[in-house]
Amino acid sequence: MAKVFDYAEVAKHNTAESCWVVLYGNVYDVTEFVPDHPGGSKVILQLAGTDATEEYDPIHPPGILEETLKPENKLGTIDASTLPSSEKSPAQETPDESGPPDLESLLNVDEIEEVATKQISRKAWAYYYSAADDLASKSFNNTVYRQILLRPRVFVDCTACDTSTTLVGHKVSLPIYVSPAAMARLAHPDGEHGIAQACGLFGAMQLISNNASMTVEQIVADAQPGQLFGWQLYVQNDRAKSEGQLARIKKLDTIKFICLTLDAPVPGKREEDERSKNIGAVLPVKSAVQGGESTSQTSSSPQTNFNPEIKPGGIGQSLFAGTAADLTWKTTLTWLAKHTNLPIVLKGLQTHEDAYLASLHAPQVKAIILSNHGGRALDTAPPAVYTLLEIRKYCPEVFNRIEVWVDGGIKRGTDVVKALCLGARGVGIGRPALFGLGAGGKEGVARVLEILKAETETCMRLLGVAKVEDLGMQYINTRSVERDIYDGPASLERPSLWEKARAKL
Amino acid sequence: MAKVFDYAEVAKHNTAESCWVVLYGNVYDVTEFVPDHPGGSKVILQLAGTDATEEYDPIHPPGILEETLKPENKLGTIDASTLPSSEKSPAQETPDESGPPDLESLLNVDEIEEVATKQISRKAWAYYYSAADDLASKSFNNTVYRQILLRPRVFVDCTACDTSTTLVGHKVSLPIYVSPAAMARLAHPDGEHGIAQACGLFGAMQLISNNASMTVEQIVADAQPGQLFGWQLYVQNDRAKSEGQLARIKKLDTIKFICLTLDAPVPGKREEDERSKNIGAVLPVKSAVQGGESTSQTSSSPQTNFNPEIKPGGIGQSLFAGTAADLTWKTTLTWLAKHTNLPIVLKGLQTHEDAYLASLHAPQVKAIILSNHGGRALDTAPPAVYTLLEIRKYCPEVFNRIEVWVDGGIKRGTDVVKALCLGARGVGIGRPALFGLGAGGKEGVARVLEILKAETETCMRLLGVAKVEDLGMQYINTRSVERDIYDGPASLERPSLWEKARAKL
Amino acid sequence: MAKVFDYAEVAKHNTAESCWVVLYGNVYDVTEFVPDHPGGSKVILQLAGTDATEEYDPIHPPGILEETLKPENKLGTIDASTLPSSEKSPAQETPDESGPPDLESLLNVDEIEEVATKQISRKAWAYYYSAADDLASKSFNNTVYRQILLRPRVFVDCTACDTSTTLVGHKVSLPIYVSPAAMARLAHPDGEHGIAQACGLFGAMQLISNNASMTVEQIVADAQPGQLFGWQLYVQNDRAKSEGQLARIKKLDTIKFICLTLDAPVPGKREEDERSKNIGAVLPVKSAVQGGESTSQTSSSPQTNFNPEIKPGGIGQSLFAGTAADLTWKTTLTWLAKHTNLPIVLKGLQTHEDAYLASLHAPQVKAIILSNHGGRALDTAPPAVYTLLEIRKYCPEVFNRIEVWVDGGIKRGTDVVKALCLGARGVGIGRPALFGLGAGGKEGVARVLEILKAETETCMRLLGVAKVEDLGMQYINTRSVERDIYDGPASLERPSLWEKARAKL
Amino acid sequence: MAKVFDYAEVAKHNTAESCWVVLYGNVYDVTEFVPDHPGGSKVILQLAGTDATEEYDPIHPPGILEETLKPENKLGTIDASTLPSSEKSPAQETPDESGPPDLESLLNVDEIEEVATKQISRKAWAYYYSAADDLASKSFNNTVYRQILLRPRVFVDCTACDTSTTLVGHKVSLPIYVSPAAMARLAHPDGEHGIAQACGLFGAMQLISNNASMTVEQIVADAQPGQLFGWQLYVQNDRAKSEGQLARIKKLDTIKFICLTLDAPVPGKREEDERSKNIGAVLPVKSAVQGGESTSQTSSSPQTNFNPEIKPGGIGQSLFAGTAADLTWKTTLTWLAKHTNLPIVLKGLQTHEDAYLASLHAPQVKAIILSNHGGRALDTAPPAVYTLLEIRKYCPEVFNRIEVWVDGGIKRGTDVVKALCLGARGVGIGRPALFGLGAGGKEGVARVLEILKAETETCMRLLGVAKVEDLGMQYINTRSVERDIYDGPASLERPSLWEKARAKL
Repeated sequence: MAKVFDYAEVAKHNTAESCWVVLYGNVYDVTEFVPDHPGGSKVILQLAGTDATEEYDPIHPPGILEETLKPENKLGTIDASTLPSSEKSPAQETPDESGPPDLESLLNVDEIEEVATKQISRKAWAYYYSAADDLASKSFNNTVYRQILLRPRVFVDCTACDTSTTLVGHKVSLPIYVSPAAMARLAHPDGEHGIAQACGLFGAMQLISNNASMTVEQIVADAQPGQLFGWQLYVQNDRAKSEGQLARIKKLDTIKFICLTLDAPVPGKREEDERSKNIGAVLPVKSAVQGGESTSQTSSSPQTNFNPEIKPGGIGQSLFAGTAADLTWKTTLTWLAKHTNLPIVLKGLQTHEDAYLASLHAPQVKAIILSNHGGRALDTAPPAVYTLLEIRKYCPEVFNRIEVWVDGGIKRGTDVVKALCLGARGVGIGRPALFGLGAGGKEGVARVLEILKAETETCMRLLGVAKVEDLGMQYINTRSVERDIYDGPASLERPSLWEKARAKL
Repeated sequence: MAKVFDYAEVAKHNTAESCWVVLYGNVYDVTEFVPDHPGGSKVILQLAGTDATEEYDPIHPPGILEETLKPENKLGTIDASTLPSSEKSPAQETPDESGPPDLESLLNVDEIEEVATKQISRKAWAYYYSAADDLASKSFNNTVYRQILLRPRVFVDCTACDTSTTLVGHKVSLPIYVSPAAMARLAHPDGEHGIAQACGLFGAMQLISNNASMTVEQIVADAQPGQLFGWQLYVQNDRAKSEGQLARIKKLDTIKFICLTLDAPVPGKREEDERSKNIGAVLPVKSAVQGGESTSQTSSSPQTNFNPEIKPGGIGQSLFAGTAADLTWKTTLTWLAKHTNLPIVLKGLQTHEDAYLASLHAPQVKAIILSNHGGRALDTAPPAVYTLLEIRKYCPEVFNRIEVWVDGGIKRGTDVVKALCLGARGVGIGRPALFGLGAGGKEGVARVLEILKAETETCMRLLGVAKVEDLGMQYINTRSVERDIYDGPASLERPSLWEKARAKL
Repeated sequence: MAKVFDYAEVAKHNTAESCWVVLYGNVYDVTEFVPDHPGGSKVILQLAGTDATEEYDPIHPPGILEETLKPENKLGTIDASTLPSSEKSPAQETPDESGPPDLESLLNVDEIEEVATKQISRKAWAYYYSAADDLASKSFNNTVYRQILLRPRVFVDCTACDTSTTLVGHKVSLPIYVSPAAMARLAHPDGEHGIAQACGLFGAMQLISNNASMTVEQIVADAQPGQLFGWQLYVQNDRAKSEGQLARIKKLDTIKFICLTLDAPVPGKREEDERSKNIGAVLPVKSAVQGGESTSQTSSSPQTNFNPEIKPGGIGQSLFAGTAADLTWKTTLTWLAKHTNLPIVLKGLQTHEDAYLASLHAPQVKAIILSNHGGRALDTAPPAVYTLLEIRKYCPEVFNRIEVWVDGGIKRGTDVVKALCLGARGVGIGRPALFGLGAGGKEGVARVLEILKAETETCMRLLGVAKVEDLGMQYINTRSVERDIYDGPASLERPSLWEKARAKL
Repeated sequence: MAKVFDYAEVAKHNTAESCWVVLYGNVYDVTEFVPDHPGGSKVILQLAGTDATEEYDPIHPPGILEETLKPENKLGTIDASTLPSSEKSPAQETPDESGPPDLESLLNVDEIEEVATKQISRKAWAYYYSAADDLASKSFNNTVYRQILLRPRVFVDCTACDTSTTLVGHKVSLPIYVSPAAMARLAHPDGEHGIAQACGLFGAMQLISNNASMTVEQIVADAQPGQLFGWQLYVQNDRAKSEGQLARIKKLDTIKFICLTLDAPVPGKREEDERSKNIGAVLPVKSAVQGGESTSQTSSSPQTNFNPEIKPGGIGQSLFAGTAADLTWKTTLTWLAKHTNLPIVLKGLQTHEDAYLASLHAPQVKAIILSNHGGRALDTAPPAVYTLLEIRKYCPEVFNRIEVWVDGGIKRGTDVVKALCLGARGVGIGRPALFGLGAGGKEGVARVLEILKAETETCMRLLGVAKVEDLGMQYINTRSVERDIYDGPASLERPSLWEKARAKL
């Protein structure tokens, strides 16, 4: 029979030398595991000697605990009566309990975000809502669609309207897909599985985040026949780990491609997320800003005792620990080719130069996603609409060689239609899906897809367009955006590579 | 003698199988009529078994009841004492009773809207005020006029100033006309007849809505000699109904043309209107969002019990039931030519391509109305000013071949003058007339016309222009708008049709 | 000895047939004079039978009463004890009595307006503050200066800085002058004489309004040697009156030119001014909107009893009564040449076409004032900066042939400098002078000039410019304005006249 | 033994004839010194006869008292018990005492300003915060960076990131330097020495203000080996004083160049600073607006007794007393060459013409600083970004001949990177350093540098750029700024000088 521990004893083991934690009523000795934690050792050490269940649960896939620790690491169980009361009732973290809203009464994506903001925890909201610096790119992602006007045609029979299309060769009912947003269980226990359920209902594609809070097997478990998934890869510094993940994906035939994320080789500065790290915490978390090594200090002054380091925290930051920042066109794509036969979708391109380079790697690369990471990586990076117009201006042949998808700022069916008119083949939604989950679990995600599908159909009908493939530049007026599209020098590497590439074609 | 019913008995007949309603104190069995209701069966079923007078009255022409039902459908009368009190005193629906304002003290169209907003019911306000999605087009309709500057000339004798002109060959005293706005009796019992009275006073044209809340005969009954009317047609799926309407219009010689509305083949998404549907309702209306068939679901999941349908409600939505979405240039104009000799005015054009196509159908088509339906159909559709400038840029000959009218966003006499300078011959007002009606019945509409006429005259005098036909592009500076006019590819059908058409001329 | 009247008896004479008023304690019979009142008969009849002193005093020059009425019109004096108390203490009209501010503590023109707004009556504020329609032109007059950037040069000796220049050949110490703003005594008893005193101190020019609240002789009475004045003419329908005024001006050799106002041939629509007409009135003023003849009604309906007339009120409106709206280049300038030898300055030009036409009338016309009447005439008319740039674009020779002055929106010394760089020779201030008067009488006007002079000098020094004549386009960056300058068709009369004119040169 | 004075006796000596002040408990007779005070005599006379310690201390270098006065000027000590209590407890001037914030919790420069605003005195805040007129340039300095978009490249190895560069040939770890902002001890006793300490930690350059509140020797006393300083020169009217300063600088070999400030030959109009001069003052300060000579009055009126002078006050104003306004390219640079061998950096250039002229004076002139003095000199002067783009447009060779630095409006690492992409080599921060000082002394300044360095590195990594010298125009999209860059006539002196210069090269 398992030994029963008092909390006071557990609390003593709160260092890197001896690190115990309580999880789901059990006591674990995780000392050996600390250095290998994918999220960094610091995160664990902050919780050393405490009941970490609440912190641990929403961001770890079920079962991962057993997978990771050895049996002997489980020391016994905790005597629940000895837990400090503040750890039992995390009132500050508890979201609004006034009950979920009537989803049918929510008429648009903004209203769903508003409801979710009240439903979910401050920490979850901060992680979803936050973006880099001053949120300029996040805001611009949406307003740029408002700058584009539609050009409806009349006397066109629009009784029929078909939103179906294909993505990397697979049929989908909607050009709208769910972007690989992490940590869905922060919003609702349905998690990424709930998103999959909603996508299944609408025939929509889902990209599964590398940082999902459920295992990929759990997420795709109840998929509809023919339901389309992609899996997002953040390449790890320890390549073997990534290779292991690819091998695991290979076994799941519902996963049709690998989405390699490129727009965040290092974390952006999401201040709202950083600020949230202590808010409502039930235990005195040690600041993630403390400690760590300073690498670029030029001198150390004996006369001062202040420490010029910046180590921002927040969930976003800890997810990055271990992510590789040294990817390159040649080495990474070659390495990938060795470990997967699935087509590659490159996510996070923001210039026509990179879109062009990607198109030179067809057919290994089948699609690119123009994305500024929801404004979360580099503030004042351009919205996807800008990159679409850049490609049209400099290298429209890209559209013929690979698929171009976009994400960021989609709030209305008219936004979806405008992206399609500009040449996008798929249109991703990230926050709307997560806020839908927060507002009402899988039903909330379905409501988001339902609204966007209906708005998209209404827009197509009022434009006089019956099929997705008939949408084009003649249905939009982009002049107020076009005059702001890049007109400067080509990048250094482009002139030669470019010309060589063209010569080859 | 008519039978007297208790309300409790009526209340039992609340299904599609047996549907009774109380109207004006009488009890009707409308079971047979339910499937044929032009506004859809659902709207009736929501009121089945109740006193529907309050819902019915402001949106149905007087007399239509007798016209529609057979004598035997009238079962008897209701015992008023048995009506539930909440149905007798719809306090929440009752508008502000503090008495009408002094119309003379209202100095501009905005002040009239402000007063009307307090006077009329929430439901009426929502129907008039609402526009598609985020109201971007509705707002832009007005602000685009603010972007255009006037260029007043000096040392011009402006003692005389004549605002008269002709529209489709008929003399009017004002270039301003009232657009075919529906449901005027929601605002005031004077209804569309009151608008006609005010137009008569000012020699202004009125377009009668297909969804007027009075019969067309009632509306034109007391017209001034020579007063000009047009009648708006929404083509019904059941063409025979539309043909019947055209035959009926043929008998009224005050109606000089048919206005075919094209900018709303399917309803736009007016959220304010949808939201209002239950507000202040005296009985628990069944949500219009429930029920109905889902047509585009790609899969049905046994694991989920949520219903991915969107069926937005509101008055606007129910008016659309039965409206045809399959009109085309060739079939519809040919069909029309068979059923009416009146000239056709096409409403809702938003591109130069369609304006050009329309001009090829002169003389059957005598005028076009550039309109985005008051921003109510497709959000981010362009304001009429954009389409005027597009026509000037691509096919100015249109102005010589057909008349071009505009509507949307007119709030000032300077707006009217700017539209005329850009080439418009008629300038329609929709909401201002309805809000005028709401603020003070027919006198309120007259006040609106009085203000706009005076402002138009002041503007013409200060520009140094004595006659409407002397207004032109030299009196306005449109540069800040011109740079945003469409510059993209011509529509697919245009190149050939266009050149062929030019060749023919 | 004068007869003493009871107020009750005076009150009986309140019609056009017998019209008495009390002024300064005397009782007058003004029945004969009513039809001849330059401000219209209605204004007097509204005050018939009452003590009109308060209404009369601030808008009539002292002495005009004796000049206008015959001795026998003075019937006697009023028994003050019989006056209704409400007429004695017009509390609502009484401005803030907390005492004048320390003028030295007011650092800019906005602060002076803010103080004046509290000091002066609601009616005076409304008259000064108001502008046409939505105040778009008034606002734009100022913001357009903010769009222009300065280009300061360094390493320039700026110890000396001379703001003096010449206007129509006369030396002034400042390029800033006071525009012909009416009704200065509404703001302060110092009135236009106070403005003259302040201008004298700073060597600034003053244009005397045709509607001044003091006689022109009173205004110029204490002028400095060499102090420069112009006199504004609104041509009256009764030309003989204007000829009389010109003859009277001829006797005053301090008045060096006639300023003919052209930008307001009919009154604009100043709603704030209209609204103010009843506010705080001590007696129930009959609405100026009632009565009058309707001229353009096309039909009269026996079925309606409402009256479609608009007759806006306010001070601005009544000043216009009798003003001629039939001026033309040929007739008016020819007529003027017969009645004055003074040079003519044309005020209110707003297009390059009119500026060019004016330049053809040199040397009779010596200067033009680009003005939209402070935004008070036609809303969305262009600011003077636009017209300056239009002239530069189309006919820069105008600057060589006549002087170009501007007014409207000046709030900072940088605004003055920018106007001068654009080619203006004189820069007029209207509201700032009146608000200065309101804030502190003549000292307040002096404070305004002191601030603007200091700011102008600071700006010139920081630009590295020592003299007014050295300012030019190289010191400003106007690109964000230039792209909005008119680019449309030339006016109808221009092509021939223009070419002919050029040929002649 | 020193004589002990009663405050009452000191208070009698409050005139220019006999001027005593109490400083640090001692009584001084400063009568002889009054006319020579670099800040003007008035400032002293306002404090004559009082304890001036509080006013004196934060804006004078320690030790300057002894240096300036003769021993016999020290009369004795004050009997502290006789001081009026109000002079002892200047409550209104006392800043928020709630204790310094946790610097680590402040995540960006705006938050640091917010905290500093609560920590420092109203007077210090007003001096730092204030800018000219309406703060248009100050605001634009920052928002113009928001208009520029970044263009991140993907698949670039960004594990390494090096922010080091060289400035005028000296190695620095950061391209960010601290601008020569005056009066640092107003914010915190650490003063300019604290700034130097923080710069030392980060290997950042510091420009020492001519108006520093510590002596230059004190500031550089504890510098790190190789730490880089420049010294700012405001040339005095009395050139001998400036020559003395240059001689003194020559002795300090840590100072590597002279920074000659050109953008403020006369003070700008900083209203916030002027307003603050009396706020919270413990004694009735005589207004700095009174007195002084009027130079440009054209007439004096015996009838008026008001004084048309403007003499704005504030700290900024008094720092200018004695500053020369007659500098020119030829005379000043020639004079400088005689008195220093150090390279010259010219600060305050705002046009491409002046940048070009400066480049002709290489190698004496080694760098220029594009600056509008933080918006403090001439309002609506262009931000440095405009001048960078002007140089690129008209004379890009300038970048090859001299270094171009910029300051103004930097709030984010992305701002720094954008300036570097545009061609700047150094990027100065003024207010952020002072507000950092105010928020937490030297640690606060270090926190500012820490944040900006981390943000700069993150930005470079996300752009895919490893070294400062690889940044360039291909990484930014400046189109929305470029269309507003000057396009007008070249300055008068340019054509010849320009061509001659080009011919010589």
